[in-house]
Amino acid sequence: MTSPNAPRPVCIIGLGLIGGSLLRDLAAAGYSVYGYNRSTSGARSARKAGFDVSDDLDDTLRKANDDAAIIVLAVPMGAVSGILDRVVELAPRCGITDVVSVKGPVYDEIRRHGLERRYVGGHPMAGTQFSGWRASKEGLFVRAAWVITYDYAAECEERGERTPQEWIDLFSDVTRMIVRVKAEAVPARVANHDMAVARVSHLPHVIASALSVVGDHGGIMAQSLAAGSFKDATRVAATDPALQRAMCESNAASLVVALDDFIHQLNQARDALDSDEPNIAELIEFGHRTRTRLEARSGARKESVSPVKISSRPVLRLHPGGPHWVRQLAQTEDIGGRIEIF
Amino acid sequence: MTSPNAPRPVCIIGLGLIGGSLLRDLAAAGYSVYGYNRSTSGARSARKAGFDVSDDLDDTLRKANDDAAIIVLAVPMGAVSGILDRVVELAPRCGITDVVSVKGPVYDEIRRHGLERRYVGGHPMAGTQFSGWRASKEGLFVRAAWVITYDYAAECEERGERTPQEWIDLFSDVTRMIVRVKAEAVPARVANHDMAVARVSHLPHVIASALSVVGDHGGIMAQSLAAGSFKDATRVAATDPALQRAMCESNAASLVVALDDFIHQLNQARDALDSDEPNIAELIEFGHRTRTRLEARSGARKESVSPVKISSRPVLRLHPGGPHWVRQLAQTEDIGGRIEIF
Repeated sequence: MTSPNAPRPVCIIGLGLIGGSLLRDLAAAGYSVYGYNRSTSGARSARKAGFDVSDDLDDTLRKANDDAAIIVLAVPMGAVSGILDRVVELAPRCGITDVVSVKGPVYDEIRRHGLERRYVGGHPMAGTQFSGWRASKEGLFVRAAWVITYDYAAECEERGERTPQEWIDLFSDVTRMIVRVKAEAVPARVANHDMAVARVSHLPHVIASALSVVGDHGGIMAQSLAAGSFKDATRVAATDPALQRAMCESNAASLVVALDDFIHQLNQARDALDSDEPNIAELIEFGHRTRTRLEARSGARKESVSPVKISSRPVLRLHPGGPHWVRQLAQTEDIGGRIEIF
Repeated sequence: MTSPNAPRPVCIIGLGLIGGSLLRDLAAAGYSVYGYNRSTSGARSARKAGFDVSDDLDDTLRKANDDAAIIVLAVPMGAVSGILDRVVELAPRCGITDVVSVKGPVYDEIRRHGLERRYVGGHPMAGTQFSGWRASKEGLFVRAAWVITYDYAAECEERGERTPQEWIDLFSDVTRMIVRVKAEAVPARVANHDMAVARVSHLPHVIASALSVVGDHGGIMAQSLAAGSFKDATRVAATDPALQRAMCESNAASLVVALDDFIHQLNQARDALDSDEPNIAELIEFGHRTRTRLEARSGARKESVSPVKISSRPVLRLHPGGPHWVRQLAQTEDIGGRIEIF
């Protein structure tokens, strides 16, 4: 039994880079946290490191149900539906969140399983090109944006209904969990999230692979000359292909929009170069301006002199369920801000 | 007067990131090295740091001529022609090399000035998104590829002529200088170099700018979610726009070929995604394979257990001017290898 003030227990399904790192951080923060890993060897490694980890999904879900835990789905998109089948059967008391890098297809599955009232979507914008439990570590999420979706509350509002307290409590608890691992909870609706990550995450993966191929076409000599700019731009092509395909292909519609925009920019640059007076001032100067602005916005604010970095994302201190709270979430989303619960 | 065994003095024209870092490394290695910087404040900073630096070009070139120094052109492409005018007039005894990121346009200027016999081209594949003397530092070139061109020797060979000893000595001295700053001297002919760097350096710059723009089109929310993959792929868009334009526009013909290849890959991916059964297995798997191979090839070899890293580039110990030496250079170029002088 947990004390009335202790956070709700967390049960993590899938202990790869993200799930494993979350397990480590929450355990370090004193949460009652445990998990399931499909790979027996991964589960064994996690147990050896002192964590409460099983390779039996049904047992893990039964325990989560006894605890009324929050279940975190940290599996690839393709495994979500099968896990939800088991959750419906074995863990009817649990709230659900996830860390999958697309939110539309997950929300479709949630709806198909009739779980909207028990689900708040999530997506931490953190990771490396490595995967699996062995790649997991403490502190992975520090100052990372962690998207939290609120479509269900917005839908209730639109219908003129009050959002159920059960959902509001789950939203609060997931936000607290995010803040506890030092990430920043950024509210976004599912469709907006998927379009944004198509531009800033899935497109970079496609670019990384395509640039790797083009470099390879240059032969061994070109490879020998590849330095920082090439290595940085292709780094994420080294990510497990199955994970890359899962995220790009399940967000295909948004990714096509982002790709069309990108190909358009490149075609303009190509034509501006294929000339007697090559001139790509427009692209380079716009790119320079936007990249410099990104740098200025991201990470710590310049005026911070203390060792504790101050986020540059504007913060909304939210009272979930209070007056106009969904409108406040939408306003925070529009400016890429973060929320804290008070 | 330098002793007979001391390396030939080096005179660096332009003390930005590359020229300034070379000045620091060569001074630390005991070379007689000095330079010119157009900006008076940059020259003053360098002098304050204890270096022999002037903001008077003609004076600097006269001194280089007295020393029969090697002149290193470390200025943007647009400044090369004007500097060569002064070199022809004031420094007829000097050998010339450069660090400009395109080699064709520099070689055209060298020919126009009738300086082929006194010129060996160079290009260190090192740098950051920062520029200017303030960005320069010791150790920038450690284990970087530093291209050294040998077109003049290949042209002599083709004509059935012996390469002049003056040129051979310059080639040897430039190679020694490269190795001395811990870079790896990679032989390449001008046209091959320009095609290779279009793929692995100039294309990544165009991509970085275009991706920055596409991210910006996603609005503040997308920017707020931009994390590692986006930041790494756009990093070099923060480079001084004038430098980026100079290298991309002066290598436009090769860059268009690389861009066409890249756009073709993206269009294929786009069409594979715009489908009821999105599938980009081919691109992602090819990209993963080539990126993994690049990682395996670059940097230190795995079997190196000593703190001294062993390069993965095959090494040719060259006797410049010896039998078949130009053919050996071509073979080394074909495998992206490096040379040392013995």
